[in-house]
Amino acid sequence: MLYESLFYDKDINALFTDEAIVAGLLQFEAALAEAQAQHGLIPETAAQAIVAACVVENIDFDTLKTAVGLGGNVNIPLVKQLTAAVKRIDTEGAKFVHLGATSQDVIDTATVLQAQKAVLIILKNTEQLIAQLAQLADTHKESLMIGRSFMQQARPITFGFKVATWLDGILRSKQRLERLLHNNFQLQLGGAVGTLASMPEKGLAVAETMARILNLSTPSVSWHTQRDNLVEIATTLGILSGSISKIAQDISLLMQTEIGEVFEPATAGKGGSSTMPHKRNPVGCTAILANARRIPPLVSTLLACMTQDHERATGAWHAEWETLTDIFKLTAGSLRQAIEITNGLEVDKDRMLKNIDVTEGLIFAENVSLALAEKIGKTEAHELVEQACKITTQTHTHLKNVLSDNETVKKYLNPEELDTLFDPKRAIGFSVFFVEQKIR
Amino acid sequence: MLYESLFYDKDINALFTDEAIVAGLLQFEAALAEAQAQHGLIPETAAQAIVAACVVENIDFDTLKTAVGLGGNVNIPLVKQLTAAVKRIDTEGAKFVHLGATSQDVIDTATVLQAQKAVLIILKNTEQLIAQLAQLADTHKESLMIGRSFMQQARPITFGFKVATWLDGILRSKQRLERLLHNNFQLQLGGAVGTLASMPEKGLAVAETMARILNLSTPSVSWHTQRDNLVEIATTLGILSGSISKIAQDISLLMQTEIGEVFEPATAGKGGSSTMPHKRNPVGCTAILANARRIPPLVSTLLACMTQDHERATGAWHAEWETLTDIFKLTAGSLRQAIEITNGLEVDKDRMLKNIDVTEGLIFAENVSLALAEKIGKTEAHELVEQACKITTQTHTHLKNVLSDNETVKKYLNPEELDTLFDPKRAIGFSVFFVEQKIR
Amino acid sequence: MLYESLFYDKDINALFTDEAIVAGLLQFEAALAEAQAQHGLIPETAAQAIVAACVVENIDFDTLKTAVGLGGNVNIPLVKQLTAAVKRIDTEGAKFVHLGATSQDVIDTATVLQAQKAVLIILKNTEQLIAQLAQLADTHKESLMIGRSFMQQARPITFGFKVATWLDGILRSKQRLERLLHNNFQLQLGGAVGTLASMPEKGLAVAETMARILNLSTPSVSWHTQRDNLVEIATTLGILSGSISKIAQDISLLMQTEIGEVFEPATAGKGGSSTMPHKRNPVGCTAILANARRIPPLVSTLLACMTQDHERATGAWHAEWETLTDIFKLTAGSLRQAIEITNGLEVDKDRMLKNIDVTEGLIFAENVSLALAEKIGKTEAHELVEQACKITTQTHTHLKNVLSDNETVKKYLNPEELDTLFDPKRAIGFSVFFVEQKIR
Amino acid sequence: MLYESLFYDKDINALFTDEAIVAGLLQFEAALAEAQAQHGLIPETAAQAIVAACVVENIDFDTLKTAVGLGGNVNIPLVKQLTAAVKRIDTEGAKFVHLGATSQDVIDTATVLQAQKAVLIILKNTEQLIAQLAQLADTHKESLMIGRSFMQQARPITFGFKVATWLDGILRSKQRLERLLHNNFQLQLGGAVGTLASMPEKGLAVAETMARILNLSTPSVSWHTQRDNLVEIATTLGILSGSISKIAQDISLLMQTEIGEVFEPATAGKGGSSTMPHKRNPVGCTAILANARRIPPLVSTLLACMTQDHERATGAWHAEWETLTDIFKLTAGSLRQAIEITNGLEVDKDRMLKNIDVTEGLIFAENVSLALAEKIGKTEAHELVEQACKITTQTHTHLKNVLSDNETVKKYLNPEELDTLFDPKRAIGFSVFFVEQKIR
Repeated sequence: MLYESLFYDKDINALFTDEAIVAGLLQFEAALAEAQAQHGLIPETAAQAIVAACVVENIDFDTLKTAVGLGGNVNIPLVKQLTAAVKRIDTEGAKFVHLGATSQDVIDTATVLQAQKAVLIILKNTEQLIAQLAQLADTHKESLMIGRSFMQQARPITFGFKVATWLDGILRSKQRLERLLHNNFQLQLGGAVGTLASMPEKGLAVAETMARILNLSTPSVSWHTQRDNLVEIATTLGILSGSISKIAQDISLLMQTEIGEVFEPATAGKGGSSTMPHKRNPVGCTAILANARRIPPLVSTLLACMTQDHERATGAWHAEWETLTDIFKLTAGSLRQAIEITNGLEVDKDRMLKNIDVTEGLIFAENVSLALAEKIGKTEAHELVEQACKITTQTHTHLKNVLSDNETVKKYLNPEELDTLFDPKRAIGFSVFFVEQKIR
Repeated sequence: MLYESLFYDKDINALFTDEAIVAGLLQFEAALAEAQAQHGLIPETAAQAIVAACVVENIDFDTLKTAVGLGGNVNIPLVKQLTAAVKRIDTEGAKFVHLGATSQDVIDTATVLQAQKAVLIILKNTEQLIAQLAQLADTHKESLMIGRSFMQQARPITFGFKVATWLDGILRSKQRLERLLHNNFQLQLGGAVGTLASMPEKGLAVAETMARILNLSTPSVSWHTQRDNLVEIATTLGILSGSISKIAQDISLLMQTEIGEVFEPATAGKGGSSTMPHKRNPVGCTAILANARRIPPLVSTLLACMTQDHERATGAWHAEWETLTDIFKLTAGSLRQAIEITNGLEVDKDRMLKNIDVTEGLIFAENVSLALAEKIGKTEAHELVEQACKITTQTHTHLKNVLSDNETVKKYLNPEELDTLFDPKRAIGFSVFFVEQKIR
Repeated sequence: MLYESLFYDKDINALFTDEAIVAGLLQFEAALAEAQAQHGLIPETAAQAIVAACVVENIDFDTLKTAVGLGGNVNIPLVKQLTAAVKRIDTEGAKFVHLGATSQDVIDTATVLQAQKAVLIILKNTEQLIAQLAQLADTHKESLMIGRSFMQQARPITFGFKVATWLDGILRSKQRLERLLHNNFQLQLGGAVGTLASMPEKGLAVAETMARILNLSTPSVSWHTQRDNLVEIATTLGILSGSISKIAQDISLLMQTEIGEVFEPATAGKGGSSTMPHKRNPVGCTAILANARRIPPLVSTLLACMTQDHERATGAWHAEWETLTDIFKLTAGSLRQAIEITNGLEVDKDRMLKNIDVTEGLIFAENVSLALAEKIGKTEAHELVEQACKITTQTHTHLKNVLSDNETVKKYLNPEELDTLFDPKRAIGFSVFFVEQKIR
Repeated sequence: MLYESLFYDKDINALFTDEAIVAGLLQFEAALAEAQAQHGLIPETAAQAIVAACVVENIDFDTLKTAVGLGGNVNIPLVKQLTAAVKRIDTEGAKFVHLGATSQDVIDTATVLQAQKAVLIILKNTEQLIAQLAQLADTHKESLMIGRSFMQQARPITFGFKVATWLDGILRSKQRLERLLHNNFQLQLGGAVGTLASMPEKGLAVAETMARILNLSTPSVSWHTQRDNLVEIATTLGILSGSISKIAQDISLLMQTEIGEVFEPATAGKGGSSTMPHKRNPVGCTAILANARRIPPLVSTLLACMTQDHERATGAWHAEWETLTDIFKLTAGSLRQAIEITNGLEVDKDRMLKNIDVTEGLIFAENVSLALAEKIGKTEAHELVEQACKITTQTHTHLKNVLSDNETVKKYLNPEELDTLFDPKRAIGFSVFFVEQKIR
């Protein structure tokens, strides 16, 4: 995979290789046999043979791949190969392979098993990102910078405040991931049409035992064509990706040559340009922003695939397979990049301070206007300040200097008061409080 | 709105008219004034004047609409009109309109207020749908029908079982809606860049008071460009719509002329055709299926819009407005149609039974195969039954009859045993159990 | 519609009001009657009565809207009202209303008629945008500015060159719109299942006459469930919107306070902020960027809706109606904003020049490196320049000055040569040529 | 790739392997050197060395993949490896590798080269599909079947007519593919910011020579951030996929056990079920329908990625890479499946005829109503037929028989006339004509 080191995370990618997918399917077949033996549906020896045969080494992937197109899913040819492998161990046992289960039981459960592992890794990485962001917010809780709306300079904030708002979204995503682990990972076992008719009397017990073996919960009814729990995994990842992309959007904008306030860490060679020494390409942000464009439409595919027909869907099910995988892989890649970026993010506090002054005091005009209004009335104050702003714009004299030369201003505001009105530290409101509250 | 009676729900549509949107904005401005007066930031009389002026009747919508394009949002011209209205009541009070708030505070909070109302209605309607589905599942828990995979007849289920699986998804959506009400409806109040700098010292207290007045929760930090809670409303509705569409998909397929097992209730004229008397167009299902195709891409828009820049986004915020509204309106429309359809759904149990027999017993072939395997071995049994199936297909003699003429079968299975193997009632597994468990 | 002046275009919106939609349907019914009379299928007097009755004033919209939900489309109740209106003119004629047509014939054709009008307006506006961009490119073909990759300063271009690349995409969209007008606007007339069975012998002739009356082309077979021509309208608009959004993306980035190279024209009050005098919010760009996030998912809805069943689709058709309308409205809104923005775009050539110098010459480092390489070899040249760049970064001395103090440089490059290497005018390659070629 | 034989086409997949992608990049570098040598920019020997080194065997893919994440694209590390390879052949020549080009020039051009090959294969396969559909339409131009709207039986058509409407959409897609080949495959060559500044004087000539070598057209200006031509490839494939999915939708519905009119060809084992002998799973249709759900959102990703910043985009470009590849692969897979399905499609003409009779004549009720209306007036005729229809529904007596017993009917319609009104052959309108016109 050419772009693994850019868009993806290798731990998550490893969960979705052909081998890993097949391993998940075999894990189901082994657990099924084990559970059925416990409940007396198949001989114990058969179960042992099946469990022993359920190893990826028994599978010829070329044959498997060719056959996928015939039956329409990977499990049909897999069961054939597995049966042959069991037969080599225990001829009698081969009769009991995949007994009473349908392909969708196997594939859905295997998907859930992979997804569970993937969510655990993603949760762990989310926690690492949270720790790094909390550290960053704390370090810079008082680092003054300009806040921007519509990419225009607005009022001062602190960089820590900005990071705290990033953190805010990621923290909620962490809770969503935990909720997923609690609610959404269920065994699928229903047989051809979900009724467990293939295991009279013992079906429910087998399901419960299997769920226990596989560390999944038991559904109250088969979910062959009720896909909300699966789709909710996708929407949750989509939201996480969205929150990560907001960080990347900010950092890439702050890295602009003309702004230069923060930079992705300069690990050996990353983002540099041999021919343009001044360039610091936001490579990690770029990957995150690319992934953030790809994930939402993939989520919409899964939402649209909820319109399933009857007891097994004609296509809507199949469209889920690679789509959910892609969502996992891309989200995990974004998360890895976010961890790399925020671990050692370079923050240029001097440049931040300097940028606050880019407008030569205009961003503080309203402060003066409000202060003067109390003395000379709102209208006069507004006009006076508006006039001063024009002088600043035309002459590039700092607004504070323009005002300090003004007779009316001199009369009502002493130099210390004027300084205060232009002091960014006084203009950040509850920035520090919000950081402290968030990282507690 | 030409298609309101087809795709939409009028109660929900009423929440999103221009008037309702503006009313929500005014509700914010009134609550802000009230809270600021409580905390001594503005005079009590000003607050009273502002509250009194915050009525839709004070707003000239034509002027408002024309001005939206200038400032880029509806709140800028609204505040202008509101200020004029307050001035007519209390000249002094006009100075305190919208004090310290930014347009996004107002618009986001108004959106949350509308969304909260909408989710409450949708939750109530979801509960009604649940009640109807539970009733339907109970009534038909033993009504035999064929289960289908890939739109091919597979094995028998009961109609109640099918309804129980529908119910299963909707029940989880109910929990998701309740969770939204608990977690996702937060006040927005941060001022220009989210720091509450415009209300020194008192900002947090004002926020808490406003949240109490508006029955919202207080965010731990402004969410101007952290949109996950808002987007989660959309994903939750998207999932609900998906689960509803699965019902519509099934019903529309079951209404096919050649299947004819269930029908949307025949309210006066609905779905009928004056020139084709046999037609029963699935009008309600059609609307739901149409909506289900439109909603997922709208959800993807909101997910994609999470990539917001700095402290106020350049476009990504604006794209949310009508998109979220559309998701609410379409989901609510689908829900209404689902209620109408399942309330008085016509179920043709005879046709269901008859359709089970369409394959002339072939769907039960495996039963015989398994039963014979115990007596004559798997391979022979399989061959015998395969041969019998061919005769059925060629001669259109029911498989049971073909088999009952077979000497080997006669030897090992008596007529009662053979009847049992072809008895759909014996083939539905845990269908009834699942229904009972689900509707408890 | 609260946001018309922000996201939309009122001429296009006017094409899609309830009244306009119904007018389109009536236009079909009138043309059908006229054509059928010409071919002797209905009496001339009936046709006259029908044509006379086909006016929006005859329609009671409240009744119509209520009834839409029953039959599932607007045409069924419309025909009922139209028939009553005809009866008031000519009792006999009422029998011949809507003869042999199916609802989808009427609705699809009306859609095509509206779409044709909309594309004509959009084409005209695209031509205006093209003219403005050509003018802008010409004016600024030599206006130096920095080119940027990954939002990092890269090498100089001219502003005219940038505009020429914008123009390039829009010109191709113009061709696509013209192609649409040539190929994609076809009559729909097939009757219940598309075979024209309802007009034996005369069906084809009636279709040709109708097409002529309505200024549409005649399809070679009904396209009730073959939607490619309709969807191609949407993809074409989606592409146009994409190209427009690229312009808005650039302008909004260039309007950043720290860059300040171009500005949306300051029409009275647009984008200004009363409390932040320095702010120039990119209001028009914001609207375009918002629309550009909404349109692509809407296009995907239409693409997905091509999966239609049999001779009339169960939902996929219905999902098209409002979706296509929204695509038209949003694209037209973006186009209008683009015209407003580029008509009178403020270009700050001084700031552009100044920004080229922001890196203190680093962007020209490679020029020096290449020039020296010819004299002292690649490796030494690279090292020398790298060293000089470091000095610039650390001491904020312009790279040209650092180099002009260097003995090796002095030896091989005279001051004029050095000046040339740092001259942006010499670094713009074929920028001017490309502009001239493009605007020819 | 586990699902290649199900969702994909191996010829197209082969175009997008890591090796094939790198081969495309090398093809650019070789053509660049060749063209530069022709125009005297680099020594002929250097060009020869570069061309000789531009073979995939020279590339260490593991090193390459690891490095992709650093520079953010594959070309940066590739040029490094290529330079080393050239050095092994001609030390001097190594200096001239990738001279004056930027990574995006290489990657975009390589993408275009792959896309061109892919479109050629897809066009060829589309032509094969067209030939098969034309044959099928011809064979069955008179094969009577019922047409269906909203999945309800409506009026008779012929199967050939249905196929002709499928063909209609595919034929237009063929034209679109040809148009792509004519218009959309352009060289990318602009250097860092698209101005060709890196090749003073000779840039345009080099571009023209390269375009000739690579069999591409020369753009009138660099399209680094103007992506419409590329995106139009995606929309064109999306439309093709949509038209194919309509075929799959119809066939899968017609394969329903209760309808059983057509079947995917029964190649060894495809779609069969060992335990359910009657099942004929629409495996090919399922794959097509799955792909058709995945492709539209991928197209929307590309449309959304047109919002690119400045002269090289921060993420929007990168999101294109794998997305466009996926669209190609999935569309080609659908096309292959469509070819397999329609080549040897089993058509059960008897079942089609039988299904026309499922409503026991009700679908012809209107014919009688119209015929009687001429004799006894519209109202009476309608009432009479309505009454007869009710008898049919209640007693399951064929409507023709009910009517032939009716005294009024007897009086006005003789048995031959009645037969004619119930004759499906007389009810298919221009079906045969449309087929003949289409397949000409």
